[in-house]
Amino acid sequence: MSTAADAYLVGLIGEGITASLTPPMHEREADLHGLRYLYRPVDLTVIGRPASAVGELLRQGRDLGFNAFNITHPCKQLVLQHLDEVSDDAARLEAVNTVLLRDGKFIGHNTDFSGFGTGLANGLPDAELDGVVQLGAGGAGSAVAYALLKAGAQSLTLVDLDPERVAARAAALAGLFPGQEVRAGSREDLPRIMAEATGLVNASPVGMHSHPGLPIDGQLLQPHHWVADVVYRPVDTELVRAASAKGCRVLDGGHMAVGQAVDAFALITGITPDAGRMRQHFLELIAQGL
Amino acid sequence: MSTAADAYLVGLIGEGITASLTPPMHEREADLHGLRYLYRPVDLTVIGRPASAVGELLRQGRDLGFNAFNITHPCKQLVLQHLDEVSDDAARLEAVNTVLLRDGKFIGHNTDFSGFGTGLANGLPDAELDGVVQLGAGGAGSAVAYALLKAGAQSLTLVDLDPERVAARAAALAGLFPGQEVRAGSREDLPRIMAEATGLVNASPVGMHSHPGLPIDGQLLQPHHWVADVVYRPVDTELVRAASAKGCRVLDGGHMAVGQAVDAFALITGITPDAGRMRQHFLELIAQGL
Repeated sequence: MSTAADAYLVGLIGEGITASLTPPMHEREADLHGLRYLYRPVDLTVIGRPASAVGELLRQGRDLGFNAFNITHPCKQLVLQHLDEVSDDAARLEAVNTVLLRDGKFIGHNTDFSGFGTGLANGLPDAELDGVVQLGAGGAGSAVAYALLKAGAQSLTLVDLDPERVAARAAALAGLFPGQEVRAGSREDLPRIMAEATGLVNASPVGMHSHPGLPIDGQLLQPHHWVADVVYRPVDTELVRAASAKGCRVLDGGHMAVGQAVDAFALITGITPDAGRMRQHFLELIAQGL
Repeated sequence: MSTAADAYLVGLIGEGITASLTPPMHEREADLHGLRYLYRPVDLTVIGRPASAVGELLRQGRDLGFNAFNITHPCKQLVLQHLDEVSDDAARLEAVNTVLLRDGKFIGHNTDFSGFGTGLANGLPDAELDGVVQLGAGGAGSAVAYALLKAGAQSLTLVDLDPERVAARAAALAGLFPGQEVRAGSREDLPRIMAEATGLVNASPVGMHSHPGLPIDGQLLQPHHWVADVVYRPVDTELVRAASAKGCRVLDGGHMAVGQAVDAFALITGITPDAGRMRQHFLELIAQGL
């Protein structure tokens, strides 16, 4: 019989997510483990529901036999009030991107930060974290900053176009990691802080197909910097290409995209997926223009 | 990407249906066609929803990416008011057990009658339909009677413990099949009408594990009768065993159970399943005590 024990029904709730690569990544990996697995995008834009419907959708999914949901923009904070339990990290981050249904209860996790952290550890194992500059302090930026601090970043400078948002984010993170330095910077400071930095992370949307360009003056990149991007459409962003050309060690945005899926798959199934295989599949999907 | 075109998410809505064999029948057959297919029981008893929630559950399923639902007791009539289109047969029967989602619309079908009809045609191809006696005029009984009349039964006598229900049902069917004779009979008439009958169908619950026994005096069975049962737990009911012992040609209840699944699978996927293989799987599941 089809039960939670041997079959998995998973959904992704968010806006504009019909083309997400997460469903096919999960499904193909599950196939290779012999699991019955079906992953449906639940696109709020398509079904005409507001972001505030996320709790109702979770409860409806419970009635209809779902095992888990991934949650994305703009519901990662809104979902919190509907959960029965939240992992320590997700509670500290105040953002959930994975909800498990266990005995009728909703358990929240965050695999955005862990996915970035795993990608960083595997893709740039010797990245010095003494002085990191991060561009972008929105939703993805929060998870990335949390992962950097959790990985041991001694000094993290957040730079964002919205001065209030970046100040608030830096203050919140400083409170969570009291022994480490978290500051808000401005774009005008970049020449000075990049000169002192060991690495740079782009967590802003600049570099996406819809926001082409470099998120920072390419002149500020030096060969000793490591450079990570979270943009993955395209996976070879202008930043990734400029940094590679300068001789920097580079982590493309596919690592975070795959990492969040790897960690969510493990939470949902209890099975450790083959992360290298999932990245390979992800790159194939991207190459197909999906 | 996972879309309606290459993956199927199906639910069964009804009361007390967690142990239904329909989900594993569909899933295994789909596997053998290389389809991604997940079939969830949505048991109103388990989720604590009333039968009147069937329309809401359909709409929720649409939002969450379901492709189809099977509908069973006590929702087969209640669901009608929530559908955008209904097949001619289901409209005449006033009962729907299969709902397809097509371009956001709900299309109702009935594969109970067609499943019984196909089972009868395949399992008892030479059954004479001149004079058929049917025990039970409830939901399953309506579908069976409709199938018998559609298959050409010249005279059909319905016998039920509820005289009002059976009279109403006979009158409704007589209206739908004006050239054929449909009558309501009583249990007291059975000796007389069985003496004139060519075949007998049990569409009452008598013979189920929970209602053991024979639905008719075994003395009334004669070797020239063909005998069909719709009870399939157990598949070898007392009626099936008694009729076989008398030398009657027999159609067990598995034929209708499998037939409704065969026809629903074909409607949902557009693929004609292997009916013999599905019956074999059904018998294996029954033998496992499922």
